[in-house]
Amino acid sequence: METVTVRYIGKKPRLKDPIFIEGLPGIGNVGKLAVEHLIEITKAIKFAELYSKDFPPQVFINADGTVKLVNNEFYYRKAKKKDQRDIILLTGDYQGLSSQGQYELVESILDVIEESGVKQMFTLGGYGLGHEIKEPKVLFATTHKHLVKTIKKYGAVFKKNEPGGGIIGASGLLLGLGKLRGFEGACFMGETPGYLVDPKSAKAVLKIITKITNIDIDLSRLEEKAKEIEHIAKQLNEMESMAKEKSDELHYIG
Amino acid sequence: METVTVRYIGKKPRLKDPIFIEGLPGIGNVGKLAVEHLIEITKAIKFAELYSKDFPPQVFINADGTVKLVNNEFYYRKAKKKDQRDIILLTGDYQGLSSQGQYELVESILDVIEESGVKQMFTLGGYGLGHEIKEPKVLFATTHKHLVKTIKKYGAVFKKNEPGGGIIGASGLLLGLGKLRGFEGACFMGETPGYLVDPKSAKAVLKIITKITNIDIDLSRLEEKAKEIEHIAKQLNEMESMAKEKSDELHYIG
Amino acid sequence: METVTVRYIGKKPRLKDPIFIEGLPGIGNVGKLAVEHLIEITKAIKFAELYSKDFPPQVFINADGTVKLVNNEFYYRKAKKKDQRDIILLTGDYQGLSSQGQYELVESILDVIEESGVKQMFTLGGYGLGHEIKEPKVLFATTHKHLVKTIKKYGAVFKKNEPGGGIIGASGLLLGLGKLRGFEGACFMGETPGYLVDPKSAKAVLKIITKITNIDIDLSRLEEKAKEIEHIAKQLNEMESMAKEKSDELHYIG
Amino acid sequence: METVTVRYIGKKPRLKDPIFIEGLPGIGNVGKLAVEHLIEITKAIKFAELYSKDFPPQVFINADGTVKLVNNEFYYRKAKKKDQRDIILLTGDYQGLSSQGQYELVESILDVIEESGVKQMFTLGGYGLGHEIKEPKVLFATTHKHLVKTIKKYGAVFKKNEPGGGIIGASGLLLGLGKLRGFEGACFMGETPGYLVDPKSAKAVLKIITKITNIDIDLSRLEEKAKEIEHIAKQLNEMESMAKEKSDELHYIG
Repeated sequence: METVTVRYIGKKPRLKDPIFIEGLPGIGNVGKLAVEHLIEITKAIKFAELYSKDFPPQVFINADGTVKLVNNEFYYRKAKKKDQRDIILLTGDYQGLSSQGQYELVESILDVIEESGVKQMFTLGGYGLGHEIKEPKVLFATTHKHLVKTIKKYGAVFKKNEPGGGIIGASGLLLGLGKLRGFEGACFMGETPGYLVDPKSAKAVLKIITKITNIDIDLSRLEEKAKEIEHIAKQLNEMESMAKEKSDELHYIG
Repeated sequence: METVTVRYIGKKPRLKDPIFIEGLPGIGNVGKLAVEHLIEITKAIKFAELYSKDFPPQVFINADGTVKLVNNEFYYRKAKKKDQRDIILLTGDYQGLSSQGQYELVESILDVIEESGVKQMFTLGGYGLGHEIKEPKVLFATTHKHLVKTIKKYGAVFKKNEPGGGIIGASGLLLGLGKLRGFEGACFMGETPGYLVDPKSAKAVLKIITKITNIDIDLSRLEEKAKEIEHIAKQLNEMESMAKEKSDELHYIG
Repeated sequence: METVTVRYIGKKPRLKDPIFIEGLPGIGNVGKLAVEHLIEITKAIKFAELYSKDFPPQVFINADGTVKLVNNEFYYRKAKKKDQRDIILLTGDYQGLSSQGQYELVESILDVIEESGVKQMFTLGGYGLGHEIKEPKVLFATTHKHLVKTIKKYGAVFKKNEPGGGIIGASGLLLGLGKLRGFEGACFMGETPGYLVDPKSAKAVLKIITKITNIDIDLSRLEEKAKEIEHIAKQLNEMESMAKEKSDELHYIG
Repeated sequence: METVTVRYIGKKPRLKDPIFIEGLPGIGNVGKLAVEHLIEITKAIKFAELYSKDFPPQVFINADGTVKLVNNEFYYRKAKKKDQRDIILLTGDYQGLSSQGQYELVESILDVIEESGVKQMFTLGGYGLGHEIKEPKVLFATTHKHLVKTIKKYGAVFKKNEPGGGIIGASGLLLGLGKLRGFEGACFMGETPGYLVDPKSAKAVLKIITKITNIDIDLSRLEEKAKEIEHIAKQLNEMESMAKEKSDELHYIG
């Protein structure tokens, strides 16, 4: 087996000019949360699994006691209305562990979507700020200049020199390597503190995807999750400041 | 030479519907101890050696002054009674060092056992608790749901969400990659503190293997080893608490 | 795709006995600064891009919101006068991350320049001193002994046993692997503190390149940059000594 | 180019049943020192260079200002007397950086010596004790049991379970992988503190090589070097104990 193996489940789906949307694990798990929610809401159908030797040598244990080898998974959702388009979705347990593994993962993903007729892609991720934020904005970067205007209309913003370090990981590489193959697309990065999984940021990103796909996505479940996480974050903050006080006291004594 | 090389010793054994049992080094060395004991007790015969470029570049020195290149080794044991089945056993000095090496190691192991006619596998390992334990339970995970009932009858237990991180290493990967090839099987994980080699946990795992294989395995030697280890653990604990006292004293002074 | 991919932009340029000059990121970014300046001043034309799986999986974001996959880039500049020669220039975002990646990067660079007819190369870098320096000298090392005399005439100096550890990275490897293929050349290393990007050291290196190429390079912009960096360095020093004082005070108290 | 490239210098030497002796960098640089001395004393002739992508991407700078790409080098020395045999010697700047690189390096070395007609090999290294030692013994390990008696006669000793961790690196791997190919041989490990290069230990190892090869090796230069190193070691020890005193004083104060 090569570094990456793609296993189709049954027949390959026949899709018409599909959009590709990626959300793998990353900062705040923003992209993964968003795509998982999209899969759930749209009842998208899994059609391929991707395995890589550059994922950890690990299986997860399902609730029924069976194992699941870590992987990435492709789903599709056919257009239901005239103003919608077919969609391919990708999420997964991991990105590649090494630089080389990341390049090979992304090339394999591009192989699958190229064969499926994809010409346009949107990659989703988080933009870690390192501090709390009330209303996360969604930053973007794109493969082609002519897309900038349209994308701004969707509500995404562009801040010059941000992210300063560019985009590291599959979301950036899909655009970078994809562009060399003739794909068009954009990366949407939801602002996030980056400490915990961030459903609020995922929600902000999905609002933009709603406009692109013309799919009415119920975001209430993400809102609930966001409240839970806020609660946990508050508790962690309290614990931390208590620990700090304790430690300060000790310093005064010592 | 490829990353992994398998060298058969003499003719390949002809086996009838053999069970495969794996026990490589890992937490508490539970799997390795169990399979080594099984090899010794059943006088299993070595039939193949597996070398990997992803093992350390190392030879061990035998008691007679000769060197032994680190490897994994396959043994077989033919059924002696009607209610027994042929068995293939695997143990070794190391697992792969890198993620990629682990995947390649496991694919090579699967090649060997597939060719030998194996359809069912049991992988043995430890489940590190990080604290002492009186009576180690044996957790399990399996490739197929229909196996769960049978396995519970053997005395293995299933705790939802444990191990939380799934199974990392060859024991999990054999099930995960094996399942994709059509193998059935289960992983048995003996609870263990995980600090030292743990013959007590290996014994618990072997009790289950006894029921699966219908081989009457004399476990007395493992019990002796368990007592030795308990003795060493006690001494280590005493030394540690003495060191802690010493260090606490110093803190009071400083 | 192999580890390294070279993508030509349009037709390959026809060059006559071109000199190759390399300046990739490194200590003080001396080589990269020098070659980037040279490209700008001589209005050199990009003719090829080099991508490697051993670069980080990263895109940068341009000022217009588009992404740029990290790479290395080849430029050429045709001779304008009788005493000049055609030049190929290489700079880029990264060197290879791993040892193997570095070797493969350099072999690919050598492939490109060999095909372009290059016989002579000059690689540019920094020599980190770890302390401030008034007038950076330019050290050199060469592929062939018969070049030493000429190179000294250009103003580069040779200090026995310096750099003690030899040259690590593309600048050294291009000479080392290039020599095995029959290339001639030298590496010029501008002395630099090594803490910050160092336009002053780049300027010193470019003075030598001026003599080799007979191109009159306007160095005023590098001088301006050097002043800016000196200003930043001074501020950093002040901040550091303030922090040190603060910390010393705390030590007296604690 | 593959991971490892071997470049012959001129015609391959025709050798009669040559012995192979390896001494690459390692603990106390014992093996390297011994083989370099042997090359010098016997005026052995270089016949091949080995380059590996798994060596650091580095060139050294020679005293004349030219660069030298890091490598391993093969030398040969023809028998001068009836009781001598042809010899192939290997030394070099580095061993492989990664596990996989080490395996590939050793396989390539075995290819060269197999083609040269070698059947017997001796690998030289150090055995790190972590403390000073008056008269370093030479430990050994061998590929075949029938060699043990002969080797003991040469003055090498065998301590059961030492080295406990076996032999890590090329010296061990050459025996381990070589044995699988049908080579015979032994590894000689000179006891060494392991802190500094250790000519005294190299001398002890060479005394055994003298007996094997029937070459009268002048060891006086190694003795001189050993004295220099002893002097340096003494100075380092004094500096360390002074630093310790200083630090103890501070602890009393603090």
